[in-house]
Amino acid sequence: MNLLERITQPNDIKQFEEEQWGPLADEIRTFLLNRVSKTGGHLASNLGCVELTMALHLVLNLPKDKIIWDVGHQSYTHKILTGRKEGFDTLRQLDGMSGFPKRVESDTDVFETGHSSTSISAAIGMAKANELKGEKSTIVAVIGDGSFTGGLAYEALNNLGRLKSSCMIVLNDNEMSIDENVGGMSSYLTKIRVGQAYNDMKSGVEKGLMNIPGIGEGIAKVVKRSKDSIKGLLVPGMFFEDLGVTYVGPIDGHNVGQMIDTFAAAIRLERPVVVHVKTVKGKGYRYAERHPKYFHGVAPFDLKTGKALKQKTKMTNTDVFGRKLLAMGEKYPNLVAITAAMASGTGLEKFANVYPKRFFDVGIAEQHAVTFAAGLASEGMIPVVAVYSSFLQRAYDQILHDVCLQNLHVIFAIDRSGLVGEDGATHQGIFDTAYLSQIPNMTVIAPKNRYELTKAMEFAVKHNGPVAIKYSRGDAYYGLKEQLEPICHGKSELLYEGKDIALIGVGSMVEVAKEAYDRLQEKDIDITLVNARFIKPLDEDMLLELAEKHSLVITLEEHVFQGGYGQAVSAFYMNSGCKDVEVVNFAINDCFVEHGNVDALRERFGINADSVIEVVEEFVRTT
Amino acid sequence: MNLLERITQPNDIKQFEEEQWGPLADEIRTFLLNRVSKTGGHLASNLGCVELTMALHLVLNLPKDKIIWDVGHQSYTHKILTGRKEGFDTLRQLDGMSGFPKRVESDTDVFETGHSSTSISAAIGMAKANELKGEKSTIVAVIGDGSFTGGLAYEALNNLGRLKSSCMIVLNDNEMSIDENVGGMSSYLTKIRVGQAYNDMKSGVEKGLMNIPGIGEGIAKVVKRSKDSIKGLLVPGMFFEDLGVTYVGPIDGHNVGQMIDTFAAAIRLERPVVVHVKTVKGKGYRYAERHPKYFHGVAPFDLKTGKALKQKTKMTNTDVFGRKLLAMGEKYPNLVAITAAMASGTGLEKFANVYPKRFFDVGIAEQHAVTFAAGLASEGMIPVVAVYSSFLQRAYDQILHDVCLQNLHVIFAIDRSGLVGEDGATHQGIFDTAYLSQIPNMTVIAPKNRYELTKAMEFAVKHNGPVAIKYSRGDAYYGLKEQLEPICHGKSELLYEGKDIALIGVGSMVEVAKEAYDRLQEKDIDITLVNARFIKPLDEDMLLELAEKHSLVITLEEHVFQGGYGQAVSAFYMNSGCKDVEVVNFAINDCFVEHGNVDALRERFGINADSVIEVVEEFVRTT
Repeated sequence: MNLLERITQPNDIKQFEEEQWGPLADEIRTFLLNRVSKTGGHLASNLGCVELTMALHLVLNLPKDKIIWDVGHQSYTHKILTGRKEGFDTLRQLDGMSGFPKRVESDTDVFETGHSSTSISAAIGMAKANELKGEKSTIVAVIGDGSFTGGLAYEALNNLGRLKSSCMIVLNDNEMSIDENVGGMSSYLTKIRVGQAYNDMKSGVEKGLMNIPGIGEGIAKVVKRSKDSIKGLLVPGMFFEDLGVTYVGPIDGHNVGQMIDTFAAAIRLERPVVVHVKTVKGKGYRYAERHPKYFHGVAPFDLKTGKALKQKTKMTNTDVFGRKLLAMGEKYPNLVAITAAMASGTGLEKFANVYPKRFFDVGIAEQHAVTFAAGLASEGMIPVVAVYSSFLQRAYDQILHDVCLQNLHVIFAIDRSGLVGEDGATHQGIFDTAYLSQIPNMTVIAPKNRYELTKAMEFAVKHNGPVAIKYSRGDAYYGLKEQLEPICHGKSELLYEGKDIALIGVGSMVEVAKEAYDRLQEKDIDITLVNARFIKPLDEDMLLELAEKHSLVITLEEHVFQGGYGQAVSAFYMNSGCKDVEVVNFAINDCFVEHGNVDALRERFGINADSVIEVVEEFVRTT
Repeated sequence: MNLLERITQPNDIKQFEEEQWGPLADEIRTFLLNRVSKTGGHLASNLGCVELTMALHLVLNLPKDKIIWDVGHQSYTHKILTGRKEGFDTLRQLDGMSGFPKRVESDTDVFETGHSSTSISAAIGMAKANELKGEKSTIVAVIGDGSFTGGLAYEALNNLGRLKSSCMIVLNDNEMSIDENVGGMSSYLTKIRVGQAYNDMKSGVEKGLMNIPGIGEGIAKVVKRSKDSIKGLLVPGMFFEDLGVTYVGPIDGHNVGQMIDTFAAAIRLERPVVVHVKTVKGKGYRYAERHPKYFHGVAPFDLKTGKALKQKTKMTNTDVFGRKLLAMGEKYPNLVAITAAMASGTGLEKFANVYPKRFFDVGIAEQHAVTFAAGLASEGMIPVVAVYSSFLQRAYDQILHDVCLQNLHVIFAIDRSGLVGEDGATHQGIFDTAYLSQIPNMTVIAPKNRYELTKAMEFAVKHNGPVAIKYSRGDAYYGLKEQLEPICHGKSELLYEGKDIALIGVGSMVEVAKEAYDRLQEKDIDITLVNARFIKPLDEDMLLELAEKHSLVITLEEHVFQGGYGQAVSAFYMNSGCKDVEVVNFAINDCFVEHGNVDALRERFGINADSVIEVVEEFVRTT
C-alpha cells in the first residue's frame, strides 16, 4: 500500500507518473477486496471502475469540476481518491461512511444518488447553472448501461440534445445492471461493442451499391477496400447523434492512458458528449468476474474462496415469495411475473426458469413495468410486479393512473419494505404505506410472517383489483405459526386477547410487537396483540372493538408517520368519537433514515420492543 | 350529415366506398367544430387525426383489434366512429360522455389514458397477453411526437425491441404537444419530415468517399446519381431500428388510402413497427391551424371568428403566478423556470420571453424536469418547476429522492391542484397533499387567494429547502383581500374569530369556507374561520388553541381524505389528547372523481358551503 498511503485528499493522484497507474490500480483493488470482504458492500461494480475513476480524477480538477455517480454504489474508488480510505472501517454502518455519495462527507460528492438514471439530468442542471453563473467547470455524469434503460436518462438526453450544454457523459458499459441487461438499447450497445452495427451498416451499403444497375459491383469492391473511411462516416453511436449528442467510443475502460486522452478531447469539445467506455464488472477478482450478480452487493465473505462468511440458515421473505410464486405458476396459467432488472433480488429466478414465456425483465424501468402490467391485466392476465419498495416510488403515477384508475387486477409484490439498513436513505422502504394507501381502489396487505405471506399471495391472486403485498428485507419470520386466521378482505387478525392495552403491529413489526408482548407477559402485563394485516382498507370494526375494550391502543410500524397506518388509525378514532381511548403511534417521524444496521436504526427511531414496553409500563404505572 | 348518420356502431365506416372517405372526413370535421364550439373540449388534436382514425377503423376489426390512444384527448373521431355521436351533447359534463377513452362507455375503449406516453407500454402488455392466450388480434398504439419525449415511451420501446411482440405504433407527428415540441427527439423527427437526416447522411457519405485517395471523386459522382438506392439503405428511422423496432414512413396523415395500405402492410409484418404519420394539428379549421396551442383545449367559441364566447374577466391563478414570477425574475437573478411542455398552461410564457436563458421547456418529461431542477439547485440556482398537480405525480420519486433527500431549494408551483372539472379522473389534482406531505423536508403551502399566492412565492424564494405551492385551476379568488397576515413558516392564518365552531379551509376551499361563514353569519351563527395556509408543517399551536376555544373543528379541502390535511388534523388531535373537541373532515372519500363542472362535483362529493352549513346547523341544534 505504498502508493495509496500517499493519497489523503482530492487530486493527490496527480503526483504519480504514468508507470505508477497500474500498481495504484492494483493497490486500490486489493484495498477494496480486503475491506468489502470484511464489511460487505457493493463490490463488482467498484472493481469494474477503478481505472475509469482514476482517469477521471487525473483529468479533472476536483471539487471545481464535478462528477455525478449514477446509482452511486460504484463510488468507492472515488471515495478512496478523495481521502476517505479510513471511512471504509465503518462502511455502511450507523454513523459511519455511506456506501453512496453523500454531500456531508465531502465537497467532491456533489449530488446524492441511489436510484438509477438520475445523473444526466443532474449534470445538465449543474452545467446550466455554471453557464448562467459564468463559471467554467467540467461536469461529468458516470452512468452504467443498465441505467440507460431507465426513461429518465432518455428524457435527459433528449433535453441535452437541445440545450447543448457542455457536459461529458461517461457510459460505463459492462453489459450488466445487477442482472444482465435487457432490451433494445442493450442489444444496440452490444452491437457497438463487437463492431456489428458498423458491419451491419457496411454490408448494407455494399448490398445497396451492388444493386445500382451496371456499375454496382465495381464500386462495392472499392468501398470494401476503403472501410476505414466508411467507418468514420457510419459512426456506431448514431442513436446518440440522432438525439443531438456527440458520441465517442467505445474505448477500453481499463486503459487509463486511453481514457485520459479521450476524456480530455471530449471535454475540449465544450458540448454534450457521450464517451462509451467498456469495462468488466468484478474486474481483477475471479469470483466476481465470474459471478458479478452475486458480488454486486455482498455480505462479508472469505477472500480466498469467495464464499459468504455467515451461511444462510433461514429463508428470506424473498425466498418465500419466489417459491410460492413458482407453485402458483402451475395453478394459474394466466399468472405472469415482471421485474425491473431485479430477477434475482426479488426472487423471480425460479419462476423465470420454469415459465420463461410468462416472465418479463423490462430493464431498470419501473414505470414501464407497471403500465405494461396494466396492459396485460386489461387482457385477462394476472401480472405480479415484483419490486423493491423504494424503487416502486418511481412508478407512483403509473400505479395510480394506469392500474388503480381502471381497477385492474395487478399484484404488487413489494420487497424491501421497511428499513433496509446498510444501503441507507435512498433505499429505505418507509414511504410505501403512504403512497399506496392514498390511491383509490388499492388494497394494501402487510403479512406478519412467512406463512401469511403465502396466504396473502393466494388472496391477491383471487381478489379482483390491485393488491400490494409488502414485506421486509432479510430473514422471514417463522414465529406465530399457529396464528393464521383465514385472510378476509380488510380484516385484521387478533393474535392474543389481553386487557387494557392493545398493541397493533404492521407487517415486519408484528415480530417486534410479539417480542414486546412476550416480555410484558413476563412482567405480568397482559396486553392484546393484533396483526394489522390489512393497511388498506382499515379494519374499522376491529378498531372500534379495540377502543371499546381497551384504554390504550398502540400502533407500531416501520414507516414514516405521515400517511402511515398509525396516523390513519388515530384519525379514525378521532372522527369516530372514540374519546375514551388513548392512542400512541410508533413510527418514523418525518425524516430520512440514513444507513446502519436495522436493529440499531429501529432503536434510534424508537420503533422497537423497548420503546413499546416503556410506554406500556408508564401507562400501567399511571392509570 | 348524410354519411355520418349511417354510422351507429363500430365498423359501420366500412360500408363506404373510397370516394366517400373525403366527404365523410369533411362531415366529421364539421360535426366536431359544431359540437366542440358549443361544449368546449379538445379541438386541434382531434381535427388533426380525423383521417388517421378513419384509416385505422377501415383496416382494423374492432373490438377484436384494439387501439390505445396515448393521452386520450384525440379520441373524438374514434368515439364518433364507434356510434357515440349523441354523447357529444353531454361531452365532458357530469354523468355525460368523457373527453377521454373510458372503458365503461364502449368495448372499443380498451385502455384509459390521460397522462402522456403510456400507450406503448399498454400495447405491449396487450400484445403479450394475446400471444400467451393464443389469440390473434392487432394492437395499435397511437402516440403523438410530444408523448415521445416522455421517458416511459422510451422504456416501452426499449422493451419492445426485445420482446418483438407484434404491435403497431402509429407515431402521429404534428410537431406539437400542447406547446411546440422540444428536444433532440423532436429535431430528429423534424429532420426525417424534411428529409434532412437522409441528406445529412448522404452528404456525409459523399464527403467520405471523396476522401478516399485517388478514387474518391468518380465514385462520389456515381453515388450521387444513385441516391434512391442509398436512400433505401440509410433509412431515416435508424433511431427506432437501433432499438430493434421496424420503422416505416413518414407518410401523409391526411391521405386515407396511403395510410390504409401502409397500416395493412405494417400489420402483416407481425412484428413491432413504428409507422410515422405526418398530420397537421387543427387541420381544416383555419383558426386552429394557425393557433393550435389556443385550440388545444378550448372553451365554447364562435365558429366564425374563432373567439371565445365568454370573455375572460378575472385573472386566473395561473396569470397571477406568471406575472409574479416575471416580477421576481428581475429581483432574483438566480431564479430559473422549468416546464414540462406546458409553458402557456402554467403561465411561464411571460417569464420565458423576458428571460429566455433562464427558462427551460424540457418536453413532456416531469421526471427530468424535477431532477434537472435538483441539479440546478445544487449549484445555487433557485428553480421553479411549474407543473399541473396530476402530472407532477409522475415525478414523485424525483421529488423525494433527488430534491427532498438533499433538502435542495426547489420551488414547485403546482397548478390545477384540486378538482379541475371537465378533464376528469386523470386530471383531478386531488392527491398532491398526500404525496407531498409525506416527504421529509418538504414544505407545502396552499394560498387562499391571489394576494397570498404572490406572498407565498416571495416566501418560497427565501425559504431554504423544497417548497410546494399549490393553487387551483380557473379564476383567482379576489376575496379576503384585507386579511393578509405575514407568511411565517408553518403558521396558519386566523381570519375571523367566532365561537364554539372553527372552520379551517385549505387553499381553494377558503373561498368556499368564507361563503359558508358569511351565510352562517346571516343566520347569527358566529364561527371562527381559519386559513390553513401551511399544509405541511401542520400548525400545531393553532390547532391546540382552536381545540381549547371550540367544541367543533371542521376541515375543508379539495383532496382525498387519505393522506390529506383533515386526516392529519384529526390524528394530531387524537394523539395530543384533545378529547373535548369534535372534528369533522370534509374531503373526497377514497375514490376517483370523473369529469363534470367543478361546482357540481363539489356538491356531489359534499365539499361545498351547503355541506358545511348543514353540519354546523346540526351541531348548533344538538348542543
